Amino acid sequence: MKSDIQIAQEAKMEPIKNVAEKLGLCEEDIEYYGKYKCKISLDVYEKVKNNKNGKLVLVTAINPTPAGEGKSTVTVGLGQAMNKLGKNAVIALREPSLGPVFGVKGGAAGGGYAQVVPMEDINLHFTGDMHAITSANNLLSAAIDNHIHQGNVLGIDSRRIVFKRVMDMNDRALRHIVVGMGGKVNGFVREDGFNITVASEIMAILCLASDLEDLKQRMGNIVVAYNLEGAPVYAKELEVQGAMALLMKDAIKPNLVQTLENTPALIHGGPFANIAHGCNSIMATKLALKLGDVVITEAGFGADLGAEKFFDIKCRYGDLTPECVVIVATIRALKHHGGVAKAELNVPNVEALSKGITNLEKQIENIKKFNVKPVVAINKFITDSNEEVEFIKEFCNKMGVQVALCDVWAKGGEGGIELGNIVLNILENNDSKFAPIYSKEESIENKITTIAREIYGADKVNYTLAAKKQIAELEKFELDKLPICMAKTQYSLSDNPSLLARPNGFDITVKEVRVSNGAGFIVVQTGDIMTMPGLPKVPAANKMDVLKDGEIVGLF
Amino acid sequence: MKSDIQIAQEAKMEPIKNVAEKLGLCEEDIEYYGKYKCKISLDVYEKVKNNKNGKLVLVTAINPTPAGEGKSTVTVGLGQAMNKLGKNAVIALREPSLGPVFGVKGGAAGGGYAQVVPMEDINLHFTGDMHAITSANNLLSAAIDNHIHQGNVLGIDSRRIVFKRVMDMNDRALRHIVVGMGGKVNGFVREDGFNITVASEIMAILCLASDLEDLKQRMGNIVVAYNLEGAPVYAKELEVQGAMALLMKDAIKPNLVQTLENTPALIHGGPFANIAHGCNSIMATKLALKLGDVVITEAGFGADLGAEKFFDIKCRYGDLTPECVVIVATIRALKHHGGVAKAELNVPNVEALSKGITNLEKQIENIKKFNVKPVVAINKFITDSNEEVEFIKEFCNKMGVQVALCDVWAKGGEGGIELGNIVLNILENNDSKFAPIYSKEESIENKITTIAREIYGADKVNYTLAAKKQIAELEKFELDKLPICMAKTQYSLSDNPSLLARPNGFDITVKEVRVSNGAGFIVVQTGDIMTMPGLPKVPAANKMDVLKDGEIVGLF
Repeated sequence: MKSDIQIAQEAKMEPIKNVAEKLGLCEEDIEYYGKYKCKISLDVYEKVKNNKNGKLVLVTAINPTPAGEGKSTVTVGLGQAMNKLGKNAVIALREPSLGPVFGVKGGAAGGGYAQVVPMEDINLHFTGDMHAITSANNLLSAAIDNHIHQGNVLGIDSRRIVFKRVMDMNDRALRHIVVGMGGKVNGFVREDGFNITVASEIMAILCLASDLEDLKQRMGNIVVAYNLEGAPVYAKELEVQGAMALLMKDAIKPNLVQTLENTPALIHGGPFANIAHGCNSIMATKLALKLGDVVITEAGFGADLGAEKFFDIKCRYGDLTPECVVIVATIRALKHHGGVAKAELNVPNVEALSKGITNLEKQIENIKKFNVKPVVAINKFITDSNEEVEFIKEFCNKMGVQVALCDVWAKGGEGGIELGNIVLNILENNDSKFAPIYSKEESIENKITTIAREIYGADKVNYTLAAKKQIAELEKFELDKLPICMAKTQYSLSDNPSLLARPNGFDITVKEVRVSNGAGFIVVQTGDIMTMPGLPKVPAANKMDVLKDGEIVGLF
Repeated sequence: MKSDIQIAQEAKMEPIKNVAEKLGLCEEDIEYYGKYKCKISLDVYEKVKNNKNGKLVLVTAINPTPAGEGKSTVTVGLGQAMNKLGKNAVIALREPSLGPVFGVKGGAAGGGYAQVVPMEDINLHFTGDMHAITSANNLLSAAIDNHIHQGNVLGIDSRRIVFKRVMDMNDRALRHIVVGMGGKVNGFVREDGFNITVASEIMAILCLASDLEDLKQRMGNIVVAYNLEGAPVYAKELEVQGAMALLMKDAIKPNLVQTLENTPALIHGGPFANIAHGCNSIMATKLALKLGDVVITEAGFGADLGAEKFFDIKCRYGDLTPECVVIVATIRALKHHGGVAKAELNVPNVEALSKGITNLEKQIENIKKFNVKPVVAINKFITDSNEEVEFIKEFCNKMGVQVALCDVWAKGGEGGIELGNIVLNILENNDSKFAPIYSKEESIENKITTIAREIYGADKVNYTLAAKKQIAELEKFELDKLPICMAKTQYSLSDNPSLLARPNGFDITVKEVRVSNGAGFIVVQTGDIMTMPGLPKVPAANKMDVLKDGEIVGLF
């Protein structure tokens, strides 16, 4: 069996200008990064803004399991299928983070015959967006410590600097550090830590900004610290938001690449899906809607986190109207939710499936709460039995939801025709009336309660004393009228990763509440969220190489 | 008077493929990064390797002063002048570091009408080479701490990890840090620190490597630490040099841009000029020699550091034969060497000039010791008096060295015609027989003595006990047969920055000796070298902005 990198390197890519041409773009509209990647100039949106919008489709999933669901693969494959069905489809994806590529994960650009290419570039430096974010973030960090070193006119409390440095690397040693050691010329000693770049608030800002001016303003609005009197200190008080915007002048432009079947894919921005909202950029999504007639996008983790934030944060800020949601599941993953151990997942087991499918049931119910039509995509595995497939189909039929078997990993777009037809049918007969599930003007606690009850199925929400105090502080400084960004385990509908399928009778406990004021949301932490991964005993990096003839090995 | 960024933004740039065409390159040979930057494919060298080599000219300077000399400006201007004289000239420069752009310095791409463009890109992310180096460096760092965390089979002594993390930012708070805090899951606590990216050994390696295989091998040869028994631990023992090479697969390709007068400029690599050798890459220089008939390159700081390392390190490894050296001086700077305060530099003062010119005299003598012909370029300032100019001309005539007034800052290539003609004359009647000044097979102390006596004019070399011990250790592990990379103040021929002009009767004191085994040189420190700059009270960043229409302000 061929590896992803082998399939990708055998692909017949079209010169990127040909892909751009499919979208009605000429050479003046693009900026090349090599032969197969380009950025789209910011002027283009102005030129096409009176085009009719295409239809927006979100691909999401059940709560992820170690069995794997293949959400990105289905997203790419569905885009390829749409093209085969005669649609001018555009895929809008997140950019992968460089750090995890060297850890356990390998790359993140779909899989099998449903990949975006050149995958080796997309998974490495791509067009430098991550590096630009790293630079802008760390310029702001350097400005904070420099401000304190040069006299601290703003009275920054060095114990309460909430804006951290970032690096696009899995490096646990940088999680908790002490900086400024070595005496007077090296600044003041304080505790600090690095996050991975995708966890930077700048990344979330890039993905929610409407243009360069908005990006600059949002970066200026970041709460970087609190002063000794307890009031927030904003990035703009350090006067580097202009230089930060200058560093981001190219990163803000959407990137265009293609799938293995030459379907255009805009890959732009990739914030964390827990402490941030986990969606690609609004600018890329809106541009895709002007350039294509169907736009397929995805959101991080399962629908309880990813789709909820897509709706309540991204669609709210971007004024987007999704018209169909594909929920990806695998039979293996549903059996895992039904209590089957990883080693037993290959054995047909309808009973376990019937227990685990309640996770899918809840995700379907949730999507309906936003007034958007769900479709279920069963991402095919060779071990699936007919009986299991039939069971899911019947279950979905009873819920009034259409379902398709999907084999894009092995067959590319061809394997997504059934799914594509169902989605197209929904789009053509659309009666969705999308709306967010809460108003951002409500109190922080009300907003959290709505999400916890309606989406997670929790009984009630508990708060630690610290969280209560943080909420009161945000209210005091009028930083509370923002959407909520829940940071919760992705493995369960609850805040306990071991409660699989569809748990009942549980509470959600809020441990920390802080504002990402530049991005424009309130991060609500229900557990310890790791924002800087580590490397495993044998990192994926150890198998990677580039040979004399340029051949790349070990990237997957 | 127009600022550099204004002049640069008014420039009529040619599409980069036209610039490439002048060098005989077709579209297949280049990889675009936007419309005005490209990388040159690695295959190109194979195609042109049988071309006759062009002539190599080094631009260097007297010891730098606060008055400014304008070495890069003369380098760019001389390239432009050569083009006006009908030569197919190629400029080979270093890439600027991003960090200092936000500090005091602004950009670094020449000045006035002798600049390389697009200067805003060259000074910001350019084609991402610095970011690739940062990533490769920090992957190795993460692998070191991960190795210790995962059981430390190699027995690395966490007190003796000599390979540091890097960031391309001026951030004093990161000079001395403690990492690995927060308990067991976050690794072992140890002291660490960040260097600025251009100080990374990976940068020096990039600039000395002959190809991707050599790059990988050199990265594997880095001494990252010592084990608990005191023996060196090499990067290759951590098995990530393949992944590091993968991260560098594009960074290794030379970058092509143009001057304001459309002269081709290869800008590639930019190592520190103190703890590294301060020259652009050998790969770019060798490629330039195959593509042009005259290649103008420069080296860091004054000739005592820059030219010496260019000859003894870069030319030795690259098998390069420089045929002419331009020594840049300004009358103001020579008067500074003669003891004139900055405020008085505008006043004609032949007496001070006659004292300060001994610095130039020594640099001329030094160049001759390498059997290469020197030329003096007086970079014109409006305050220069005729009497002062005549004095220098006479002085150089007596030394048998040709001298030219140079006004490229105000007039571009036109202002460098006199210099260009002199250089061409030397190249056409070349009788240089370049040779390094010492054999790398000599003992470390002998090599240092040769440089200190012959180049600096020192009486003798003293060693601290620590340095003596370090030399003995390098000899023990057979890491001593490498060229020397002196880290000394750039402001004086001595190791005391306040001894200007041509000091006599001084000793050099060696404080630290360590090996950059991947790069292939021994770093000899004669003082405290700052490898992570800080930001000033009002950083240059505070004035920078990018406006709604894309206009960039404050970059200079």
